[in-house]
Amino acid sequence: MSIGIHIIADLKGVESGKISNVEEVRKIMEGAVKAGDLTKIRSHYHQFTPEGVSGIILIAESHLSFHTWPEYGLVTLDIFTCGPTEKAETAFEYIIDKVSPQTVEYKEIERGMEYPRGSQKKELEIGAV
Amino acid sequence: MSIGIHIIADLKGVESGKISNVEEVRKIMEGAVKAGDLTKIRSHYHQFTPEGVSGIILIAESHLSFHTWPEYGLVTLDIFTCGPTEKAETAFEYIIDKVSPQTVEYKEIERGMEYPRGSQKKELEIGAV
Repeated sequence: MSIGIHIIADLKGVESGKISNVEEVRKIMEGAVKAGDLTKIRSHYHQFTPEGVSGIILIAESHLSFHTWPEYGLVTLDIFTCGPTEKAETAFEYIIDKVSPQTVEYKEIERGMEYPRGSQKKELEIGAV
Repeated sequence: MSIGIHIIADLKGVESGKISNVEEVRKIMEGAVKAGDLTKIRSHYHQFTPEGVSGIILIAESHLSFHTWPEYGLVTLDIFTCGPTEKAETAFEYIIDKVSPQTVEYKEIERGMEYPRGSQKKELEIGAV
Protein backbone atom coordinates (compact mmCIF):
# COMPACT_ATOMS: atom_id res chain seq x y z
CA MET A 1 0.00 0.00 0.00
CA SER A 2 1.46 3.34 -1.01
CA ILE A 3 0.31 6.83 -2.00
CA GLY A 4 1.97 6.63 -5.40
CA ILE A 5 4.52 5.19 -7.77
CA HIS A 6 7.66 7.03 -8.77
CA ILE A 7 9.52 5.96 -11.91
CA ILE A 8 13.12 7.18 -11.83
CA ALA A 9 14.87 6.66 -15.14
CA ASP A 10 18.15 7.57 -16.79
CA LEU A 11 17.91 7.28 -20.57
CA LYS A 12 21.29 6.87 -22.25
CA GLY A 13 22.51 6.83 -25.80
CA VAL A 14 19.87 9.27 -26.99
CA GLU A 15 20.43 11.01 -30.31
CA SER A 16 21.32 14.58 -29.32
CA GLY A 17 19.01 16.17 -31.89
CA LYS A 18 15.99 14.70 -30.10
CA ILE A 19 16.75 16.38 -26.78
CA SER A 20 18.52 19.64 -27.67
CA ASN A 21 15.56 21.83 -28.43
CA VAL A 22 12.96 23.02 -25.97
CA GLU A 23 10.10 22.66 -28.45
CA GLU A 24 10.95 19.02 -29.10
CA VAL A 25 11.07 18.31 -25.37
CA ARG A 26 7.80 20.13 -24.84
CA LYS A 27 6.09 17.92 -27.44
CA ILE A 28 7.39 14.76 -25.81
CA MET A 29 6.39 15.75 -22.28
CA GLU A 30 2.96 17.13 -23.10
CA GLY A 31 2.32 14.06 -25.21
CA ALA A 32 3.25 11.82 -22.29
CA VAL A 33 0.77 13.57 -20.01
CA LYS A 34 -1.98 12.98 -22.55
CA ALA A 35 -0.93 9.39 -23.22
CA GLY A 36 -1.06 8.62 -19.49
CA ASP A 37 -4.40 10.38 -19.08
CA LEU A 38 -2.86 12.59 -16.41
CA THR A 39 -4.22 15.97 -15.26
CA LYS A 40 -1.91 18.85 -16.06
CA ILE A 41 -1.88 21.86 -13.76
CA ARG A 42 1.14 23.76 -15.07
CA SER A 43 4.31 23.08 -17.01
CA HIS A 44 7.52 24.98 -17.58
CA TYR A 45 10.39 24.39 -19.99
CA HIS A 46 13.81 25.96 -20.15
CA GLN A 47 16.38 26.08 -22.93
CA PHE A 48 19.94 26.16 -21.63
CA THR A 49 22.89 27.53 -23.52
CA PRO A 50 24.94 26.24 -25.12
CA GLU A 51 22.69 23.18 -24.93
CA GLY A 52 20.34 21.17 -22.78
CA VAL A 53 16.69 21.45 -21.83
CA SER A 54 14.75 21.06 -18.61
CA GLY A 55 11.03 20.53 -18.35
CA ILE A 56 8.79 20.06 -15.37
CA ILE A 57 5.06 19.39 -15.23
CA LEU A 58 2.94 19.69 -12.13
CA ILE A 59 0.00 17.32 -12.44
CA ALA A 60 -2.89 16.69 -10.05
CA GLU A 61 -1.37 13.25 -9.53
CA SER A 62 2.10 14.72 -8.63
CA HIS A 63 4.73 15.56 -11.30
CA LEU A 64 6.95 14.71 -14.25
CA SER A 65 10.44 16.06 -14.85
CA PHE A 66 12.84 15.76 -17.77
CA HIS A 67 16.42 17.08 -17.86
CA THR A 68 18.67 16.62 -20.89
CA TRP A 69 22.41 16.65 -21.57
CA PRO A 70 22.59 16.38 -25.37
CA GLU A 71 26.40 16.37 -25.18
CA TYR A 72 26.18 12.98 -23.42
CA GLY A 73 22.99 11.70 -25.02
CA LEU A 74 21.53 11.63 -21.49
CA VAL A 75 18.02 12.25 -20.14
CA THR A 76 17.07 12.02 -16.47
CA LEU A 77 13.34 11.39 -16.26
CA ASP A 78 10.99 11.24 -13.27
CA ILE A 79 7.32 10.30 -13.34
CA PHE A 80 5.59 10.38 -9.97
CA THR A 81 1.86 9.67 -9.91
CA CYS A 82 -0.79 8.83 -7.41
CA GLY A 83 -3.63 6.75 -8.73
CA PRO A 84 -3.27 3.76 -11.02
CA THR A 85 0.31 2.59 -11.67
CA GLU A 86 -0.66 2.02 -15.30
CA LYS A 87 -0.91 5.77 -15.93
CA ALA A 88 2.72 6.31 -14.96
CA GLU A 89 3.82 3.31 -16.96
CA THR A 90 1.90 4.42 -20.04
CA ALA A 91 3.49 7.89 -19.88
CA PHE A 92 6.89 6.24 -19.43
CA GLU A 93 6.44 3.98 -22.43
CA TYR A 94 5.34 6.95 -24.52
CA ILE A 95 8.53 8.85 -23.67
CA ILE A 96 10.79 5.85 -24.31
CA ASP A 97 9.15 5.41 -27.68
CA LYS A 98 9.72 9.06 -28.63
CA VAL A 99 13.27 9.36 -27.28
CA SER A 100 14.56 5.95 -28.42
CA PRO A 101 17.45 5.58 -25.95
CA GLN A 102 20.01 2.82 -26.42
CA THR A 103 19.73 1.92 -22.75
CA VAL A 104 17.21 2.64 -20.00
CA GLU A 105 18.20 2.37 -16.34
CA TYR A 106 15.16 2.71 -14.13
CA LYS A 107 13.61 2.02 -10.77
CA GLU A 108 10.02 2.06 -9.63
CA ILE A 109 9.80 3.35 -6.08
CA GLU A 110 6.69 3.27 -3.92
CA ARG A 111 6.16 6.67 -2.27
CA GLY A 112 4.26 7.20 0.97
CA MET A 113 4.30 3.60 2.10
CA GLU A 114 1.46 2.64 4.49
CA TYR A 115 -0.96 5.12 2.92
CA PRO A 116 -3.74 4.21 0.49
CA ARG A 117 -3.30 4.71 -3.26
CA GLY A 118 -6.86 5.97 -3.58
CA SER A 119 -5.88 9.20 -1.89
CA GLN A 120 -4.89 10.94 -5.08
CA LYS A 121 -6.00 14.51 -5.31
CA LYS A 122 -9.04 14.53 -7.51
CA GLU A 123 -10.43 17.90 -6.62
CA LEU A 124 -8.73 20.67 -8.51
CA GLU A 125 -9.15 24.30 -7.74
CA ILE A 126 -9.77 26.02 -11.03
CA GLY A 127 -7.65 29.01 -10.11
CA ALA A 128 -4.07 27.78 -9.77
CA VAL A 129 -1.96 29.82 -7.38
CA MET B 1 30.95 9.61 -10.94
CA SER B 2 27.48 10.87 -11.68
CA ILE B 3 25.72 13.91 -13.12
CA GLY B 4 23.85 14.62 -9.91
CA ILE B 5 22.42 13.54 -6.61
CA HIS B 6 18.70 12.93 -6.06
CA ILE B 7 17.32 12.93 -2.53
CA ILE B 8 14.00 11.10 -2.38
CA ALA B 9 12.27 11.53 0.96
CA ASP B 10 8.95 10.74 2.57
CA LEU B 11 8.37 12.88 5.66
CA LYS B 12 5.84 11.38 8.05
CA GLY B 13 4.13 12.54 11.19
CA VAL B 14 4.08 16.17 10.09
CA GLU B 15 1.71 18.53 11.88
CA SER B 16 -1.04 19.16 9.35
CA GLY B 17 -1.08 22.92 9.91
CA LYS B 18 2.43 23.17 8.54
CA ILE B 19 1.62 21.65 5.18
CA SER B 20 -2.02 22.61 4.50
CA ASN B 21 -1.56 26.07 3.13
CA VAL B 22 0.09 27.00 -0.13
CA GLU B 23 1.73 30.11 1.32
CA GLU B 24 3.39 28.11 4.09
CA VAL B 25 4.70 25.57 1.58
CA ARG B 26 5.94 28.35 -0.69
CA LYS B 27 7.97 29.84 2.18
CA ILE B 28 9.56 26.50 3.00
CA MET B 29 10.46 25.67 -0.59
CA GLU B 30 11.79 29.10 -1.58
CA GLY B 31 13.75 29.17 1.67
CA ALA B 32 15.29 25.79 0.84
CA VAL B 33 16.46 27.04 -2.57
CA LYS B 34 18.16 30.00 -0.92
CA ALA B 35 19.63 27.89 1.89
CA GLY B 36 21.15 25.50 -0.65
CA ASP B 37 22.46 28.37 -2.80
CA LEU B 38 20.56 26.95 -5.75
CA THR B 39 19.57 28.88 -8.88
CA LYS B 40 15.82 29.22 -9.29
CA ILE B 41 14.38 29.41 -12.80
CA ARG B 42 10.66 29.09 -12.08
CA SER B 43 8.38 27.76 -9.36
CA HIS B 44 4.74 26.88 -9.19
CA TYR B 45 2.49 26.04 -6.24
CA HIS B 46 -0.98 24.64 -6.15
CA GLN B 47 -3.59 24.54 -3.38
CA PHE B 48 -5.83 21.50 -3.57
CA THR B 49 -9.29 21.30 -2.11
CA PRO B 50 -10.29 20.21 0.39
CA GLU B 51 -6.64 20.05 1.39
CA GLY B 52 -3.09 19.41 0.24
CA VAL B 53 -0.48 21.43 -1.58
CA SER B 54 1.96 20.71 -4.39
CA GLY B 55 5.00 22.77 -5.21
CA ILE B 56 7.63 22.35 -7.88
CA ILE B 57 10.74 24.42 -8.52
CA LEU B 58 12.80 24.24 -11.68
CA ILE B 59 16.39 25.18 -10.83
CA ALA B 60 19.43 25.44 -13.07
CA GLU B 61 20.79 22.43 -11.18
CA SER B 62 17.58 20.36 -11.87
CA HIS B 63 14.50 20.52 -9.57
CA LEU B 64 12.76 20.29 -6.22
CA SER B 65 9.24 18.97 -5.63
CA PHE B 66 7.03 18.88 -2.57
CA HIS B 67 3.61 17.20 -2.34
CA THR B 68 1.56 17.18 0.87
CA TRP B 69 -1.26 15.10 2.33
CA PRO B 70 -2.15 16.98 5.52
CA GLU B 71 -4.79 14.36 6.33
CA TYR B 72 -1.95 11.84 6.77
CA GLY B 73 0.77 14.22 7.96
CA LEU B 74 2.71 13.16 4.85
CA VAL B 75 5.10 15.03 2.56
CA THR B 76 6.84 13.49 -0.44
CA LEU B 77 9.95 15.53 -1.18
CA ASP B 78 12.45 15.35 -4.05
CA ILE B 79 15.64 17.34 -4.37
CA PHE B 80 17.65 16.65 -7.52
CA THR B 81 20.78 18.74 -8.08
CA CYS B 82 23.83 18.68 -10.24
CA GLY B 83 26.89 20.27 -8.74
CA PRO B 84 28.05 19.83 -5.16
CA THR B 85 26.14 17.24 -3.11
CA GLU B 86 26.30 19.62 -0.17
CA LYS B 87 23.83 21.99 -1.84
CA ALA B 88 21.13 19.32 -2.01
CA GLU B 89 21.85 18.22 1.54
CA THR B 90 21.70 21.77 2.87
CA ALA B 91 18.34 22.34 1.20
CA PHE B 92 17.14 19.02 2.60
CA GLU B 93 18.20 19.87 6.13
CA TYR B 94 16.48 23.25 5.85
CA ILE B 95 13.19 21.60 4.90
CA ILE B 96 13.42 18.99 7.65
CA ASP B 97 14.03 21.74 10.16
CA LYS B 98 10.97 23.70 9.00
CA VAL B 99 8.61 20.75 8.64
CA SER B 100 9.68 18.83 11.78
CA PRO B 101 8.48 15.36 10.74
CA GLN B 102 8.39 12.56 13.30
CA THR B 103 10.11 10.25 10.83
CA VAL B 104 12.08 10.72 7.63
CA GLU B 105 12.47 7.89 5.14
CA TYR B 106 14.94 8.83 2.44
CA LYS B 107 17.33 7.62 -0.20
CA GLU B 108 20.12 9.39 -2.01
CA ILE B 109 20.30 8.18 -5.60
CA GLU B 110 23.09 9.00 -8.03
CA ARG B 111 21.63 10.11 -11.36
CA GLY B 112 23.42 9.80 -14.70
CA MET B 113 26.07 7.36 -13.56
CA GLU B 114 29.29 7.44 -15.62
CA TYR B 115 28.97 11.15 -16.36
CA PRO B 116 30.92 13.91 -14.61
CA ARG B 117 29.36 15.96 -11.84
CA GLY B 118 30.95 19.14 -13.14
CA SER B 119 28.53 19.14 -16.05
CA GLN B 120 25.88 21.13 -14.26
CA LYS B 121 24.22 23.77 -16.37
CA LYS B 122 25.78 27.01 -15.38
CA GLU B 123 24.77 29.13 -18.33
CA LEU B 124 21.26 30.42 -17.98
CA GLU B 125 19.35 32.07 -20.75
CA ILE B 126 17.81 35.18 -19.28
CA GLY B 127 14.58 34.72 -21.14
CA ALA B 128 12.97 31.54 -19.88
CA VAL B 129 10.73 29.84 -22.40
